Amino acid sequence: MTRGAAMDLQGILDTIFHEMQDRSDRGIVADYIPELAQVSPEHFAMSLCTADGQSFHVGAAEVPFSIQSISKVFTLALALGRLGDQLWTRVGREPSGLAFNSMVQLEHENGIPRNPFVNAGAIVVTDAILAGHAPREVLGEVLRFIRQAAGDDDIHINHRVAKSEQDTGHRNLALAHFMRAHGNLRNAPELSCGVYFHQCAIEMSTRQLAQAGRFLMGGDPAARLVSPARVRRINALMLTCGHYDGSGDFAYRVGLPGKSGVGGGILVIAPGRASIAVWSPGLDAQGNSRLGTLAVERLAQATQWSVFG
Amino acid sequence: MTRGAAMDLQGILDTIFHEMQDRSDRGIVADYIPELAQVSPEHFAMSLCTADGQSFHVGAAEVPFSIQSISKVFTLALALGRLGDQLWTRVGREPSGLAFNSMVQLEHENGIPRNPFVNAGAIVVTDAILAGHAPREVLGEVLRFIRQAAGDDDIHINHRVAKSEQDTGHRNLALAHFMRAHGNLRNAPELSCGVYFHQCAIEMSTRQLAQAGRFLMGGDPAARLVSPARVRRINALMLTCGHYDGSGDFAYRVGLPGKSGVGGGILVIAPGRASIAVWSPGLDAQGNSRLGTLAVERLAQATQWSVFG
Amino acid sequence: MTRGAAMDLQGILDTIFHEMQDRSDRGIVADYIPELAQVSPEHFAMSLCTADGQSFHVGAAEVPFSIQSISKVFTLALALGRLGDQLWTRVGREPSGLAFNSMVQLEHENGIPRNPFVNAGAIVVTDAILAGHAPREVLGEVLRFIRQAAGDDDIHINHRVAKSEQDTGHRNLALAHFMRAHGNLRNAPELSCGVYFHQCAIEMSTRQLAQAGRFLMGGDPAARLVSPARVRRINALMLTCGHYDGSGDFAYRVGLPGKSGVGGGILVIAPGRASIAVWSPGLDAQGNSRLGTLAVERLAQATQWSVFG
Amino acid sequence: MTRGAAMDLQGILDTIFHEMQDRSDRGIVADYIPELAQVSPEHFAMSLCTADGQSFHVGAAEVPFSIQSISKVFTLALALGRLGDQLWTRVGREPSGLAFNSMVQLEHENGIPRNPFVNAGAIVVTDAILAGHAPREVLGEVLRFIRQAAGDDDIHINHRVAKSEQDTGHRNLALAHFMRAHGNLRNAPELSCGVYFHQCAIEMSTRQLAQAGRFLMGGDPAARLVSPARVRRINALMLTCGHYDGSGDFAYRVGLPGKSGVGGGILVIAPGRASIAVWSPGLDAQGNSRLGTLAVERLAQATQWSVFG
Repeated sequence: MTRGAAMDLQGILDTIFHEMQDRSDRGIVADYIPELAQVSPEHFAMSLCTADGQSFHVGAAEVPFSIQSISKVFTLALALGRLGDQLWTRVGREPSGLAFNSMVQLEHENGIPRNPFVNAGAIVVTDAILAGHAPREVLGEVLRFIRQAAGDDDIHINHRVAKSEQDTGHRNLALAHFMRAHGNLRNAPELSCGVYFHQCAIEMSTRQLAQAGRFLMGGDPAARLVSPARVRRINALMLTCGHYDGSGDFAYRVGLPGKSGVGGGILVIAPGRASIAVWSPGLDAQGNSRLGTLAVERLAQATQWSVFG
Repeated sequence: MTRGAAMDLQGILDTIFHEMQDRSDRGIVADYIPELAQVSPEHFAMSLCTADGQSFHVGAAEVPFSIQSISKVFTLALALGRLGDQLWTRVGREPSGLAFNSMVQLEHENGIPRNPFVNAGAIVVTDAILAGHAPREVLGEVLRFIRQAAGDDDIHINHRVAKSEQDTGHRNLALAHFMRAHGNLRNAPELSCGVYFHQCAIEMSTRQLAQAGRFLMGGDPAARLVSPARVRRINALMLTCGHYDGSGDFAYRVGLPGKSGVGGGILVIAPGRASIAVWSPGLDAQGNSRLGTLAVERLAQATQWSVFG
Repeated sequence: MTRGAAMDLQGILDTIFHEMQDRSDRGIVADYIPELAQVSPEHFAMSLCTADGQSFHVGAAEVPFSIQSISKVFTLALALGRLGDQLWTRVGREPSGLAFNSMVQLEHENGIPRNPFVNAGAIVVTDAILAGHAPREVLGEVLRFIRQAAGDDDIHINHRVAKSEQDTGHRNLALAHFMRAHGNLRNAPELSCGVYFHQCAIEMSTRQLAQAGRFLMGGDPAARLVSPARVRRINALMLTCGHYDGSGDFAYRVGLPGKSGVGGGILVIAPGRASIAVWSPGLDAQGNSRLGTLAVERLAQATQWSVFG
Repeated sequence: MTRGAAMDLQGILDTIFHEMQDRSDRGIVADYIPELAQVSPEHFAMSLCTADGQSFHVGAAEVPFSIQSISKVFTLALALGRLGDQLWTRVGREPSGLAFNSMVQLEHENGIPRNPFVNAGAIVVTDAILAGHAPREVLGEVLRFIRQAAGDDDIHINHRVAKSEQDTGHRNLALAHFMRAHGNLRNAPELSCGVYFHQCAIEMSTRQLAQAGRFLMGGDPAARLVSPARVRRINALMLTCGHYDGSGDFAYRVGLPGKSGVGGGILVIAPGRASIAVWSPGLDAQGNSRLGTLAVERLAQATQWSVFG
């Protein structure tokens, strides 16, 4: 199968970029904290790193944005590296069929979140990494992992964003206290949520994010921060759960594993082929980037990179 | 990438067969109707058709079993062929996070089932094909489609099973009446459920089922009953929703699109590579074949056919 | 305690009638069947039978209306008379906190309805009376019970209404099939629902309904169709469950046991004092008569008949 | 109506006491904090204050116990006195049909608790009283209100219990954070929950509690801390919501408004007749005192004090 071999990837990105420039249906920028509300919906950027080491970019590919829930992919990789399959005693691997911050499922299932990408699940994952260590230390480790994956040390936490998340983070604190009541949180809710709010406040450009995602392409041994078997499993979780109650639709339209963030970014993996990052701040009703989703749908159509044949 | 090129697929199947023969944790055979309850849990069969036209079999690959919910894949393909994307106004594309026969989601979402593979969704799909035609006629069409896909005319409905389903099918009738109350069923509940009960009572061997699944491999133009774009989408739905509230786990462990039936069969697609059918009647807690799932997990490990890299 | 002794009850009813005549916020008439949709929202009637045998009326007190769910009180009394406390193995005694036709609770609690006044519970009660007898026979018994309670043989089923209920009753059939699937329905869903649809189609005037409710006042031995202990318990169920998810509000505002029907009628009991019937076809968001509720609230204020002091 | 006039109430209490002494089905003592877990299940006490000023006691009527959720009645009376009907914009008046600490309803209804007696509702009520004041001050006011109602200044908070509640109160903090996220909590969750944990840790004997409940009997003007209309409404809420998802059963069996606490106490009101307190630490599955409920059921049978005739 030679598809992709001689593709003009830059040309494809350029075409997508021009289509996106012209669209007016850009969705709604997240406004629960001022730092996100101020971001212009006009931003658009897309970056792509291929398995054979090439890179392609369009738009504001050097502008850092808040990665938010995309950070959950990196903390999951860290937690699996440390705890292995033991992690699955504390969090499930099933799509929830509910919103990212729902408490209903937690109550029906005794404080065990459905998967590591809903908020409750990500807080458990962070709590598992925290494990009694100092929050500052653990945040340092998360940053080191991401910088190493990206091959770029210029990746930082936006502390103003972290502060705002903390000030408005009552729903996440509710999830954390609830899990603590069920014995599924080992650290004080304030500490686990504190680390969680800071990991969500990490800022990256699409260039950095596409680079950081290369370890999930499989293929290149040099990029292997985690084993091939684990890479496959993280990709499986991204495909089934990476877009909350919009995951099925993303799989249907795009056909690739992806993880979105409320800052408007999406990390998408074409296994064996490419790591892709897209950014457009306007969101759809499920909280996923509207143009970002459309852009990767176009990319998947043009490249035939769907995992589904 | 050469993986699969020179693989000894028959050897892999043989190894899996011998492991499965030795296992005692075979799950529980469905017992809600006598025809299923009488099936021996000792049965095991596996068949595999590759994209280049080869076939491999182990175990009771010629013994017909009740395909049950696997039939939903074929009726979905038929309905998409007839209605196209209009079908999605009546049924969603998201994993439900709930059991296959749950009413809770239906009530919260005004009678629109989450996806075509939960019972309610499959009844809507069948109702869409029925569309005022005579049930007998529509069943004939479903059978013709499957026989054509399998290249085998010796595929039939077990009418005793259909009768038993009908006698005990109150939960499905409840779903149908509920959707009718919401205007999402066009035919009388008894008619749509009648066709549905009969399609579930179709019997096939793993050899026939693996052959019938070839149209979902993509690749071979000769096998194309539906367009490549549609094939990808059906595969996406199988991966995210094909095993009910065990879909995430199947994606995590196997990494391939699949659809299970309560008769103990599973149809699994390795896009571009193979169509696989497995049968072992004992079920796990989610209603999916226990050894069948394990067998395809072993196959995916041995062949590296995961779609996730 | 002498309150009520020398009250001018006719004067109180007249005052209420005049206030209601002037109000324009009459709610929305039920429109799911044409026979109910055609009823004028301008109707208003109120009747009151005291423990010492007096009667008072205002408005259209001789006009028959569809009693709908008020019939559940009479079938409950009949079923308790026949099965005694055994009935409570099949239906609970708790407010549901949900709409009258919800399936969610049924699914979470294995087909056991929360109480005899939600639709599912009333269908179980009717199924318990049916018990293999001919539907026509059982309907005759229900009618005889109501006519005896009312001391009036001119009470009938409106067969056009019953037919319309049957044609549109898919949601109730869904509840019945669901309970049948859980083994909590002994007769065919069509039969139990058939009787249920007919009992709901009984027509009475407020005069007849107030008379029929006298057996729930307690006190007068002559009116005792059921024992005092059972009367107290039916009243308790009416107070906690008689207005679906508006029951708490009715208890708060009116302070008396009551049962509403979607035809706009309410039967209200002032234990030891009076049986009251009110009718105004316009409904509030919970499906209870808007002016009817207000009228009995006014009556409770004027008479100080609240059971709560 | 003369029933009760010449009743031998002390004799009735004595008979109940002897029956309870002999019973071995005492339920399970709450064990989520050590201070409650250590209480002997053998305790039993019952006190009764009549509208004409008499008092009757059996058992350990002078032993203080943790009133827990019974405190919610007093804070509700205080909050209604201060905010009037405005309180109902922040909390409903309907039975929830769910456990006392459920989050499901809160999520479905935007952070508005169903009623003031589920935990979330009581936290909102306390938050409404707190209203920016110092927690210590507000607790002083709650204590003053209860002492005045009881005519007894020897009523105190057990600070060890309050401390333990706080240490294990993650589920209540989850509710509070969740409501804060929906804008339905005005003070910091820690502050509102802090006051709530302390009000639950108030200790009273049955003698003191029966005395403190007299203001809910209505009747005696001297005992009127709140208006007759408000008394009726608080009683209505106790009857429909006072025993969580066991409220319907309590109304059915006892027929009187009551509020239970996890310490094993119940405050019961016979409007116009008596205020009753009972204490037995063993609980049933819904978290209500098992023997306490049985004892008031016996009392209601013997006295015919049911509000339902």
